[in-house]
Amino acid sequence: MSLPLDPDDSVVVLAHEQFPDRAKTAVGVLRYAEYDVTAVLDRDRAGESVGDHVPDVPDAPIVESMDAALGVADPDALVIGIAPIGGGFDESWRPDVRAAIEAGCDVIAGLHYFLEDDAEFAALAADHGVDLIDVRRPPDDLTVSEGRAREADADVVLTVGTDCSTGKMTTTLELVAAARARGVDAGFVPTGQTGIMIAGWGVPIDRTISDFAAGAVERMILDAAPDHDVLFVEGQGSILHPAYSGVTCSLLHGAMPDALVVTHSAGREAIHGYESFPIPPVETHADLYTDLAEPVAPTTVAAGALDTRTFEDDAAAREAVDAYADALDAPATDPVRFDADELLDALL
Amino acid sequence: MSLPLDPDDSVVVLAHEQFPDRAKTAVGVLRYAEYDVTAVLDRDRAGESVGDHVPDVPDAPIVESMDAALGVADPDALVIGIAPIGGGFDESWRPDVRAAIEAGCDVIAGLHYFLEDDAEFAALAADHGVDLIDVRRPPDDLTVSEGRAREADADVVLTVGTDCSTGKMTTTLELVAAARARGVDAGFVPTGQTGIMIAGWGVPIDRTISDFAAGAVERMILDAAPDHDVLFVEGQGSILHPAYSGVTCSLLHGAMPDALVVTHSAGREAIHGYESFPIPPVETHADLYTDLAEPVAPTTVAAGALDTRTFEDDAAAREAVDAYADALDAPATDPVRFDADELLDALL
Repeated sequence: MSLPLDPDDSVVVLAHEQFPDRAKTAVGVLRYAEYDVTAVLDRDRAGESVGDHVPDVPDAPIVESMDAALGVADPDALVIGIAPIGGGFDESWRPDVRAAIEAGCDVIAGLHYFLEDDAEFAALAADHGVDLIDVRRPPDDLTVSEGRAREADADVVLTVGTDCSTGKMTTTLELVAAARARGVDAGFVPTGQTGIMIAGWGVPIDRTISDFAAGAVERMILDAAPDHDVLFVEGQGSILHPAYSGVTCSLLHGAMPDALVVTHSAGREAIHGYESFPIPPVETHADLYTDLAEPVAPTTVAAGALDTRTFEDDAAAREAVDAYADALDAPATDPVRFDADELLDALL
Repeated sequence: MSLPLDPDDSVVVLAHEQFPDRAKTAVGVLRYAEYDVTAVLDRDRAGESVGDHVPDVPDAPIVESMDAALGVADPDALVIGIAPIGGGFDESWRPDVRAAIEAGCDVIAGLHYFLEDDAEFAALAADHGVDLIDVRRPPDDLTVSEGRAREADADVVLTVGTDCSTGKMTTTLELVAAARARGVDAGFVPTGQTGIMIAGWGVPIDRTISDFAAGAVERMILDAAPDHDVLFVEGQGSILHPAYSGVTCSLLHGAMPDALVVTHSAGREAIHGYESFPIPPVETHADLYTDLAEPVAPTTVAAGALDTRTFEDDAAAREAVDAYADALDAPATDPVRFDADELLDALL
């Protein structure tokens, strides 16, 4: 899927009542997307600004509604930057979506509820000639993997992890940014809804038919490789996640990475939401990922990324990172707290 | 999904031009389904009989068309017992499906092409009050696994393998039959279209959304466990299959089996259809399956099943089985050529 967003386009991001801490997509878009954000919608923080909450991103006003956002600038699209548990559409957002469509904006969402299937929005979008884009709907022409990702004429790096939400997307994007800063032609291969919104293309691997998950990754690798020297592939889940391991396994065998970056969230001891499942030591993960890859397409654990946000001071974070690197027997850092250069040295 | 087939119902099985060697579903239904088969449709073999080709199953005539089959008996359903490459609907079957519907038969298919979505068949089925059942369409209320299959009050045995088509379904069904012959209350958990047609219920795991694959297996385990003492779960693919490993991984973590039966096809050295991928030794598979299960729900390799059809004489087959058992460090046999009792001894 490809979104109608160019680097010089601009968007409004909806994040009502959840900005910034529970608005992972909104913050990801602010931090990493090339297109501009002209305003964030959060009725609880109207009058504040993005810069009050998220450092190191271009500032933008926080306003109460799409109508207010249209008074600030003339955006190309409205991006739904939050997802309620269950991925439904919150009816309190309806006036904002309606106003966006009426103003000629495309609407981009990553919900389980598809905007395209909403009768009112579909009719209104047709009337105004705008697109409703549900990034969680996979393309309908996917097929099985042919086992060809190793043929890609680019190095492939996959982020894997010990659980969901360990910083796989963030690490991948930090690596892309650091590589580009060094003049390396690095491509980002997005596999989840936030990554897709940021990059403007990609396939939501977790929503594909399970038989086609590896094939979807393979196709993205083969499509993107000719344009880049190295591809950083956003990983999903964990090979030991009770619910999502199949997605992770499809990514590992579909992407056939030359190298892995293993991510972990410092201090997390059990699978999030599955607290009766302890997270084994990171070296167990490293062995499993490489053992599982070996007969299909051998790979190595080249680096580790540790999310150290639970540590207040940098010294403690650095200590945790060092212990993590020792356990993994590979260079490691927190690419957000520190920077991704150390990882890049190990990868390039 | 649950099919409208009781043990005292009868069906016609369509297998045009492919019976018996390329009609895996037709032969599976003849061999293992509890309902009766009144005729097989194969226009190339009309006038012959099932008994000419498949030993040890109730005989039935092979006829050229559904009209001819209706002259033999009054069946409850037509089962599409073959699948062309790609899973499409072969237009040469249309008169047979039409005749079945007009005669009041349900039509059961496992194609990628859904009969329900065929305008002519849908209208005709509505007129005649019959059901069109596409077993490859997963239920639309699936959700993520909760990691609860270990709570099932039944022992769970999962067949795994070194590739697709290594006899996972057959081994599972032979184990169920052998267990029942011993008076054990054994249940069969079908996960693919042929298994579903045979058992009359089940979810096609390879067609579910990848995030929900483990959840679909878990639900089947928890639904079936209260009615049985032991559940034999039909496995899919292989943990080292370049395209389908994600499905296999979801089954392993979703089913949380107490024991595994590892299947292999004697003499096969590379992944079928992926000939550049050699199949590693079976002990590599055994280690990977148990290592991958261990932190989520520990399991053991309790037995092996070797498909020895490539050997003409029993002595050579027995020798291959013994070598396989040695490599696996577990009892093994060919449950079709010999019998499943040896495996059952290791499992119960």
